[in-house]
Amino acid sequence: MGKILRWGLVGGGEGSQIGDAHRIAARIDGQISLSAGALDVDPSRGRAFAQTLGVAPDRAYGDWREMLEGERSRPDRVELVTVATPNATHFEIAAAFLENGFHVLCEKPMTMDPKDAETLLEIARRKDRVLAVNFGYSGYPMVREARAMVARGDLGRVRLAVAEFAHGFHADAADADNPRVRWRYDPAQAGVSSVVADCGIHALHMIGYVTGQRIEAISAHFASLVGDRALEDDASLSLRYSNGTIGRLWTSAVAIGQMHGLNLRIFGEKGGLRWHQEAPNQLFWTPLNQSTVVVERGMPNASDVARAASRITIGHTEGMLVAFANIYRDLHHAIGSDSPADRQLALDHIPLGIAGAEMVAAVDAAARSAGQDGAWVDLV
Amino acid sequence: MGKILRWGLVGGGEGSQIGDAHRIAARIDGQISLSAGALDVDPSRGRAFAQTLGVAPDRAYGDWREMLEGERSRPDRVELVTVATPNATHFEIAAAFLENGFHVLCEKPMTMDPKDAETLLEIARRKDRVLAVNFGYSGYPMVREARAMVARGDLGRVRLAVAEFAHGFHADAADADNPRVRWRYDPAQAGVSSVVADCGIHALHMIGYVTGQRIEAISAHFASLVGDRALEDDASLSLRYSNGTIGRLWTSAVAIGQMHGLNLRIFGEKGGLRWHQEAPNQLFWTPLNQSTVVVERGMPNASDVARAASRITIGHTEGMLVAFANIYRDLHHAIGSDSPADRQLALDHIPLGIAGAEMVAAVDAAARSAGQDGAWVDLV
Amino acid sequence: MGKILRWGLVGGGEGSQIGDAHRIAARIDGQISLSAGALDVDPSRGRAFAQTLGVAPDRAYGDWREMLEGERSRPDRVELVTVATPNATHFEIAAAFLENGFHVLCEKPMTMDPKDAETLLEIARRKDRVLAVNFGYSGYPMVREARAMVARGDLGRVRLAVAEFAHGFHADAADADNPRVRWRYDPAQAGVSSVVADCGIHALHMIGYVTGQRIEAISAHFASLVGDRALEDDASLSLRYSNGTIGRLWTSAVAIGQMHGLNLRIFGEKGGLRWHQEAPNQLFWTPLNQSTVVVERGMPNASDVARAASRITIGHTEGMLVAFANIYRDLHHAIGSDSPADRQLALDHIPLGIAGAEMVAAVDAAARSAGQDGAWVDLV
Amino acid sequence: MGKILRWGLVGGGEGSQIGDAHRIAARIDGQISLSAGALDVDPSRGRAFAQTLGVAPDRAYGDWREMLEGERSRPDRVELVTVATPNATHFEIAAAFLENGFHVLCEKPMTMDPKDAETLLEIARRKDRVLAVNFGYSGYPMVREARAMVARGDLGRVRLAVAEFAHGFHADAADADNPRVRWRYDPAQAGVSSVVADCGIHALHMIGYVTGQRIEAISAHFASLVGDRALEDDASLSLRYSNGTIGRLWTSAVAIGQMHGLNLRIFGEKGGLRWHQEAPNQLFWTPLNQSTVVVERGMPNASDVARAASRITIGHTEGMLVAFANIYRDLHHAIGSDSPADRQLALDHIPLGIAGAEMVAAVDAAARSAGQDGAWVDLV
Repeated sequence: MGKILRWGLVGGGEGSQIGDAHRIAARIDGQISLSAGALDVDPSRGRAFAQTLGVAPDRAYGDWREMLEGERSRPDRVELVTVATPNATHFEIAAAFLENGFHVLCEKPMTMDPKDAETLLEIARRKDRVLAVNFGYSGYPMVREARAMVARGDLGRVRLAVAEFAHGFHADAADADNPRVRWRYDPAQAGVSSVVADCGIHALHMIGYVTGQRIEAISAHFASLVGDRALEDDASLSLRYSNGTIGRLWTSAVAIGQMHGLNLRIFGEKGGLRWHQEAPNQLFWTPLNQSTVVVERGMPNASDVARAASRITIGHTEGMLVAFANIYRDLHHAIGSDSPADRQLALDHIPLGIAGAEMVAAVDAAARSAGQDGAWVDLV
Repeated sequence: MGKILRWGLVGGGEGSQIGDAHRIAARIDGQISLSAGALDVDPSRGRAFAQTLGVAPDRAYGDWREMLEGERSRPDRVELVTVATPNATHFEIAAAFLENGFHVLCEKPMTMDPKDAETLLEIARRKDRVLAVNFGYSGYPMVREARAMVARGDLGRVRLAVAEFAHGFHADAADADNPRVRWRYDPAQAGVSSVVADCGIHALHMIGYVTGQRIEAISAHFASLVGDRALEDDASLSLRYSNGTIGRLWTSAVAIGQMHGLNLRIFGEKGGLRWHQEAPNQLFWTPLNQSTVVVERGMPNASDVARAASRITIGHTEGMLVAFANIYRDLHHAIGSDSPADRQLALDHIPLGIAGAEMVAAVDAAARSAGQDGAWVDLV
Repeated sequence: MGKILRWGLVGGGEGSQIGDAHRIAARIDGQISLSAGALDVDPSRGRAFAQTLGVAPDRAYGDWREMLEGERSRPDRVELVTVATPNATHFEIAAAFLENGFHVLCEKPMTMDPKDAETLLEIARRKDRVLAVNFGYSGYPMVREARAMVARGDLGRVRLAVAEFAHGFHADAADADNPRVRWRYDPAQAGVSSVVADCGIHALHMIGYVTGQRIEAISAHFASLVGDRALEDDASLSLRYSNGTIGRLWTSAVAIGQMHGLNLRIFGEKGGLRWHQEAPNQLFWTPLNQSTVVVERGMPNASDVARAASRITIGHTEGMLVAFANIYRDLHHAIGSDSPADRQLALDHIPLGIAGAEMVAAVDAAARSAGQDGAWVDLV
Repeated sequence: MGKILRWGLVGGGEGSQIGDAHRIAARIDGQISLSAGALDVDPSRGRAFAQTLGVAPDRAYGDWREMLEGERSRPDRVELVTVATPNATHFEIAAAFLENGFHVLCEKPMTMDPKDAETLLEIARRKDRVLAVNFGYSGYPMVREARAMVARGDLGRVRLAVAEFAHGFHADAADADNPRVRWRYDPAQAGVSSVVADCGIHALHMIGYVTGQRIEAISAHFASLVGDRALEDDASLSLRYSNGTIGRLWTSAVAIGQMHGLNLRIFGEKGGLRWHQEAPNQLFWTPLNQSTVVVERGMPNASDVARAASRITIGHTEGMLVAFANIYRDLHHAIGSDSPADRQLALDHIPLGIAGAEMVAAVDAAARSAGQDGAWVDLV
């Protein structure tokens, strides 16, 4: 509590769902002030919208370069910059702000190319700035509970992680010309992958976030099931992780009837965990040879980390926007706290650039594997 | 969007769950500014806490009288005052602010006594101010969808409403001296009812909110199942509504294993609806002689009212805090909009004082019925 | 295993759902032989149908009197007689077979009148015969697990039992002349109650079966919500049990969208249990101040009684017909076993006439209470 | 109804779960008589047990050869023989009975080797006998409903099938010497695959049963996650089906907390279907761009095929044993009916040898693919 973090936003203009989500999440704890913004590809529209959000006219910028120019020399310059622009522009913008000493929260995928991701990591290290990536599901209290359980050894060695993220909102063949859908299957805009880069990546990030293991190799099968899409709308991945953990991932955009479908199951030597985004208050925990236990958000027997990520009493639903607010709160602490211990604790919970880079490499490896009929591709 | 609503808060000091909930809800859309507050029974603690929340020092008041005095003559005085103090003080505070022309959102129960509730209604009418009561569940998109379905006749005449709100957090006999629990069973602090006034009232409000019917008579059975509590920790109500609708309500605080348990079922001539607070994105709708349909928050076939109350895409969980934000947004529109149509639309969704008064009368009638072995008691 | 029980069936002719259910349940373990039957009101149709079921021609009777006459003097006479005729005939038939020394399984309600029920108990006692009533849900393994948990004190004293049985299959006003529905609302055929006697009675029996407590007093509200029905299609009951346990029951036939809806929740000093007939493999158990545990049919930590009632490995669904088979197996043991201990164990699990009589009295008391606006009526 | 089918059983001795399941399933409709048996590897134990089941002493055989010898020349010889012996013996026994003109129901996997499976098909064709394989889940009413929906075009072309069958009962490293578990990971007894051949095969069969498509190629990854097992305890398969359908399958025996986990999802051009074995009464159907509809077993809008497979009213649970009974009833009709149309209808629902052979080939192809790092292997 206390100090207000000065925050700038690039992208997320009027009518943008993700822009609204960032703004709501940043507002929830009243500790972050939207001080500057370059919100729209249309400069005048962006400037006008920023002002309706309370940004001072001289900090309502026409584009990100103008914002970088305007902010970098101000004594009250923004401390954290969120990059919520089209995917292909993440790298250039994030790199520029990091080089100028801003902390950065980047939308996923962090970059289009694994090398660019490594470059961002290098800049962030050199400049000693926080580089975070918005894998928002890592803000859910019970995801953090699961992570804490794995970390303290409740599961023993993790043998197997099974994740899925499947929806059905790209299943309509009549949507071929729907601009909301079409760009995702255009390699020029979406890169080497569609549904893996868009959805699968979240599930993949969660495996790493919860288990603490890194991907070593991937075998992937992609399918394009609607029309003549150039990119996949369905994929199955097998993964080898450090420590011998095996991963299984299914992701799809043609699974009619699945609303969201982010689902994580972790199986270790000593027990299994299940979590489902559409009922996020419950974590199902089955110790070996025992009955399943329902771990509820807010119960006294939950860990400190889950309790700290919770804002309302047990039995009430919390949701995505509040989960997302946890990431902004962590960033507030990681950047603004005077206590090194607090900063470190916050950093431990944030989905960081190093994971963002791993995910970019994973998408790239999956696409290469799929191009070779599922041959195993190592992540370096 | 646009105009910022100036808001004042009475009660909800540091560490208060309900205070946090109000503040988060008010922040979510960035349209409401906490401009004044009298947050704590301890004046200096209240003043200090208000300032950490960004309230100007001269508007961080020591108590509500000081706040009323300070605000009423300011040209930039707060427009809306939220009353989140102990139940027994609601009436006096709300009456004073209404009399001075402030709009008021009052925590439930609106008053301890039905006559006081009528008095508040009278003042609000005379002063032409909004008097709202925080029945927060009415902010859930799918509750509003249910209400819209009933209003447009999908169910035909409503025959039966079945509601429950049962938790198990007052079940431990060892909690007899736990101050968090004890006051709720002390008539001096809690009034004529404990679990009905605390929990059942929400479920009861939802029946009226969704069906549009008013309670005509109540038969209630109360039970005190733990220790020697002077007030009920479990109750069963039967209700007669206008239009011949019958109501059934069970509420409990000793139902170990129920986390929250707010649950509403509405059965009409032409179909049935089910909604459960712990999975609020889904409304189950069964047309007569047909299969059950899962109406999902965010689906294109949802009504305008449900869509308007939604801030994130389908399949993501939304939750209590966002539902609650809908009530603050409605208040913003009802008070601040220049368009009479907008104001009316917002008013139509707000849980208003008239319902608050009906609920106070219902609790009172239930307690009287329970005292007469379940005899039917009319609401006047 | 071993000895085949000779079984006779009265009622349950061709096309009768309940007749099929009895026959399947009796066949499942291969220990019961349908040796005699008087299956239909039409003697020749009944005789013909019995023979297609493998009954010898001379034991395929035209009516129950003929069957009683034919069987009572045979050396290989049937040992157990099931009475599955219209409700109003149960008493006369069951009494006659008991008087002649047959064991009887009677469909519910055991009789139309409480005095008749007492008479049956008296005959059964005098003749030392088993009188059982087909409360089939008591055959579910996890219902028996719940009962065993209560009996061994896991819940401490039971404070509260909440049960419901609500469906929506009598909700269509257009069914007024549908003979399948109409008779249930005709006092001449159905007696003093419709949905309580038909559905609520099962939920009520389960409370007693699981908790071991007897009903002391009932307050009931009945409603007729469709057309001009003479009997209730919806009811709410509050109950006082021995040992201070309080009961709450809702039952309905107009709850459109509820398929079956038999649901039991038991709350004690030390924990709470939940069971739902539509997912019968799971029993949810919440010890006080701890997380909910999912007790699964077939788990090694289930009690002997649950395991003994189970015929297939964990995770497979078992269902009503198999639950029902448990009651026939219990009857086989209770009647046919050479071991007194086995006989007693089996008797302990069977829903007996004493409970059947309690249920008849409860329905009668509920109807009287409803007729007096919900006044409390004692069970003697 | 009517004619009794004479049935013989090989294997399934005392204490065998699968033997009990076959016997219960065969008894449920009272149309099948266990007339002969060779139930145990120990001849005298087998003969004794058969007689306790009501088999005549001269038809209670010591082994299957004796049974074949004894039965083939009898005028009242058994018509159908069930083979429920250890997997490696299925081929020899099934072949011998088919050659001698018996109809055969074989436990899965039908054979250990794809060539043997083809040989069985050839014999069955030549002798014009029914060769069925016990993929029991195909007996569930709502699985048949799903199949009927696909067949009548509700889904349009099927694009994608996603299945899983995962349990956690082989996850305990301490079970290395547990004979119940150990043999499944011994290639000498289990063949080329463990969990795919044991569990995955059921899920795989269901994809084909419901979609009507045949497997063309498989890519598989196997993992051995506990101890030094020689065979896989976890696997992920991608499949290419005729008609362009893509398949995804995950199967596991180390998924602690999964009780059974058989789960099928089918996605077509016009909608998606979901079915889960642990809640088999419901089929979730989502037409493209519409809300999900819950299709319930027993509803009037279910298809004839689902209704015909149902023995109890809506809302009651039916389960595995009753599903299994449907296969025996189909066999009764397919073998015993005088009407060619009835015979054909029954045959259409039975899981036949041709599917059994496809599954044996699929397991073999999956094992070969897994041995080549997931290379695609064609089914011929």
